[in-house]
Amino acid sequence: MAPLRSWLNIESSSDFSIANIPFGIISTAVDPLPRVATAIGSLALDLHAFAQGNGFARLSTIQPHQSVFSQPTLNAFAALGRPMHRVCREYIQSILLEDGPFPDVFQNNHALQQSALIPLEECRMHLPMQIGDYTDFYAGLHHAYNVGVLFRGPQNALQPNYKHLPVGYHGRASSVVVSGTPVRRPNGQILLDPTAEPKQPVLSPCHKLDIELELGCFVCKPSKLGEPVAIGKAADYLFGLVLLNDWSARDIQAWEYVPLGPFTSKSFCTTISPWVVLMDALEPFATHGLKNDAEVLPYLDEKDRKAHYAIDLSVSLTTASDKSTVISTTSAKNLLFSFPQMLTHHTIGGCPFNVGDLLGSGTISGESASGKGCLLEQTENGKVAVQLEGGEQRSFLQDGDIITLTGRCIGENGAIVGFGSCTGRIEPALKL
Amino acid sequence: MAPLRSWLNIESSSDFSIANIPFGIISTAVDPLPRVATAIGSLALDLHAFAQGNGFARLSTIQPHQSVFSQPTLNAFAALGRPMHRVCREYIQSILLEDGPFPDVFQNNHALQQSALIPLEECRMHLPMQIGDYTDFYAGLHHAYNVGVLFRGPQNALQPNYKHLPVGYHGRASSVVVSGTPVRRPNGQILLDPTAEPKQPVLSPCHKLDIELELGCFVCKPSKLGEPVAIGKAADYLFGLVLLNDWSARDIQAWEYVPLGPFTSKSFCTTISPWVVLMDALEPFATHGLKNDAEVLPYLDEKDRKAHYAIDLSVSLTTASDKSTVISTTSAKNLLFSFPQMLTHHTIGGCPFNVGDLLGSGTISGESASGKGCLLEQTENGKVAVQLEGGEQRSFLQDGDIITLTGRCIGENGAIVGFGSCTGRIEPALKL
Repeated sequence: MAPLRSWLNIESSSDFSIANIPFGIISTAVDPLPRVATAIGSLALDLHAFAQGNGFARLSTIQPHQSVFSQPTLNAFAALGRPMHRVCREYIQSILLEDGPFPDVFQNNHALQQSALIPLEECRMHLPMQIGDYTDFYAGLHHAYNVGVLFRGPQNALQPNYKHLPVGYHGRASSVVVSGTPVRRPNGQILLDPTAEPKQPVLSPCHKLDIELELGCFVCKPSKLGEPVAIGKAADYLFGLVLLNDWSARDIQAWEYVPLGPFTSKSFCTTISPWVVLMDALEPFATHGLKNDAEVLPYLDEKDRKAHYAIDLSVSLTTASDKSTVISTTSAKNLLFSFPQMLTHHTIGGCPFNVGDLLGSGTISGESASGKGCLLEQTENGKVAVQLEGGEQRSFLQDGDIITLTGRCIGENGAIVGFGSCTGRIEPALKL
Repeated sequence: MAPLRSWLNIESSSDFSIANIPFGIISTAVDPLPRVATAIGSLALDLHAFAQGNGFARLSTIQPHQSVFSQPTLNAFAALGRPMHRVCREYIQSILLEDGPFPDVFQNNHALQQSALIPLEECRMHLPMQIGDYTDFYAGLHHAYNVGVLFRGPQNALQPNYKHLPVGYHGRASSVVVSGTPVRRPNGQILLDPTAEPKQPVLSPCHKLDIELELGCFVCKPSKLGEPVAIGKAADYLFGLVLLNDWSARDIQAWEYVPLGPFTSKSFCTTISPWVVLMDALEPFATHGLKNDAEVLPYLDEKDRKAHYAIDLSVSLTTASDKSTVISTTSAKNLLFSFPQMLTHHTIGGCPFNVGDLLGSGTISGESASGKGCLLEQTENGKVAVQLEGGEQRSFLQDGDIITLTGRCIGENGAIVGFGSCTGRIEPALKL
């Protein structure tokens, strides 16, 4: 099948081909009010302006709901539900299509193009959703295994529960930020010498600042207290995916985490990419995840459904001297549990969900050495430095380092469904 | 000092004396719109109606902000800040006072009394705040010690970090409900025989459903990403306290909690009392908490400030056959860390706060056998049953059990500042 072609000039390498149509929140110098847009090639299509200019004239189902595009978050659009996301995305594709059915709406409407198309570099991106609750899982099997080997050896690398349920913990919604937000190195309690007794912590800037390469998944449908979401229905609750960097302070984490889990070592910042790629856009790339050699309980059984996505992921590190190195490449297939399984497990006891809640996949690592999704794994907790372009080395992140995550699916016809980038630069710790 | 007296008839045993003036959200059959009220004796004073009826005529500072009382949550009122809470509370006290300064405003204004005073039993109570993030701490030293002894023996009961920082974890904001909401017994993965190998979980209703007696503290002032709240400023961020029951599924928790902490074992329900008792109302009862024999780092040093409160707490269990037993009595003094210390530690790495965020203290247990704040401690994980009035016994909660937490401070002059009750009835698990 030939790729869809647009009458707009879209570079073939763009993450935002006409096969994508992601949703995000933009503002501009001219119009500082945050509003909904989609990305197409190097442009944003301002859907607030598009709706105002009668761009949805040929999509009657959306017309009673057009105010969703004037909101400062995607929550109202998400809450319309997956069937509406689908018709909206397909309609936008149709008006961008070369030889599309409605050329008068946009292709031949220069006034509307003038008001609604904005170069992406003129857009400020905002957090796409108002996030109610954020949960971070641990479904990257190779990551969990590698970290387990570091701390408990290969015999006990995975805890007994690991393959039976998607292990996860409640995260901090208030500290989720959009790509580009500076990441201040956190202060916290650490042990300068973890082996010394008695253990006496100091307050210090984190010495082991790390990344975690993850996917995030937004929820678009609420569920009620006490009412689990069945595995066969879970996909209806999923809005779309983003890249997610769960910045982690490993030395703070090591001291604080017993017995209730990671806390301030995680909640200083979590960065997500600004464009939410709809589940529909990812459907052509659906695949199986990692095979689970434990038989999951029936409530988690997906019956061989392809509930993972073949997204190529990468992590690059750019130093203060502007040298960039790709330090990891892997695939989002490397998960033991899918987002539907995560949601179903999360609600099995009755935990309710709201539109805008966020699920993190956990760190995604490939099996090979080149595909490890965090520095803790790559450097074996700081013992083996990563070599960078230009001769520098890293055990953990230095001030001034920029981390950029990318993710993209490449269709058989060459059409790209990509995420753009998820980036953050490390700022020095606050002097206390 | 004689207690303050009101021209209203207030029973001397009421939690809602004129010394209290807590804030909550009510609705009624006549007016189903949720709105702000205070409780006084057996009445609610509807502050929306009161404001509409010019009740704040003599408090010019609140007049530009009166719309906060028409909101469905206390967030807007809380966001006005502690100085405004103080003048508001004192003004309401003044108009309720016998021989108060402004008798025309309310005491002699029967029309306003008619529209604004409502019997509490006619009020439906709502969740008082829209909760952004909820964090649960573990600051009850005796609880942490007792639980540690059960699982690790007395030598290692407390983890090495315990006395150096307030251990906590991110909770699930969406599952916080107001007192009276039914509590459905959760389903989840448990090990029927935890010692059998290989470990094979089943999906089952929780067999070890438990309570946790806690205080909750609401935040009224936002803090920014990357900007810690200094210990000397932390009290400015605290709005008021509620009772909090952190219902816990011990068998689900035991299986799921490694390595990232409690998850679905907690997020099925957390109940709070409906009336937020302002920090100002509690100030006369300020006291020291438990002495910390570890020297805390300077950022957590309160310099001997009294940052705890002498709140008498109780837990009662009412069976389906309507027999009630007080199963625990203790004091909120039994905390090793205060709410200011919790907030300061929480933000030390830069985690931001929003108005409406909730901090849980962790289970509060006294030193004695009669003061244990959960059944896990009381029954030594199910080994020693609790004897109830009427001859029944409990290892953990049964369907139909009602748990009621109470909390009250009794002033030297007999004036009570109480919390009302925090209650929930156990409903049978959903059949899956």
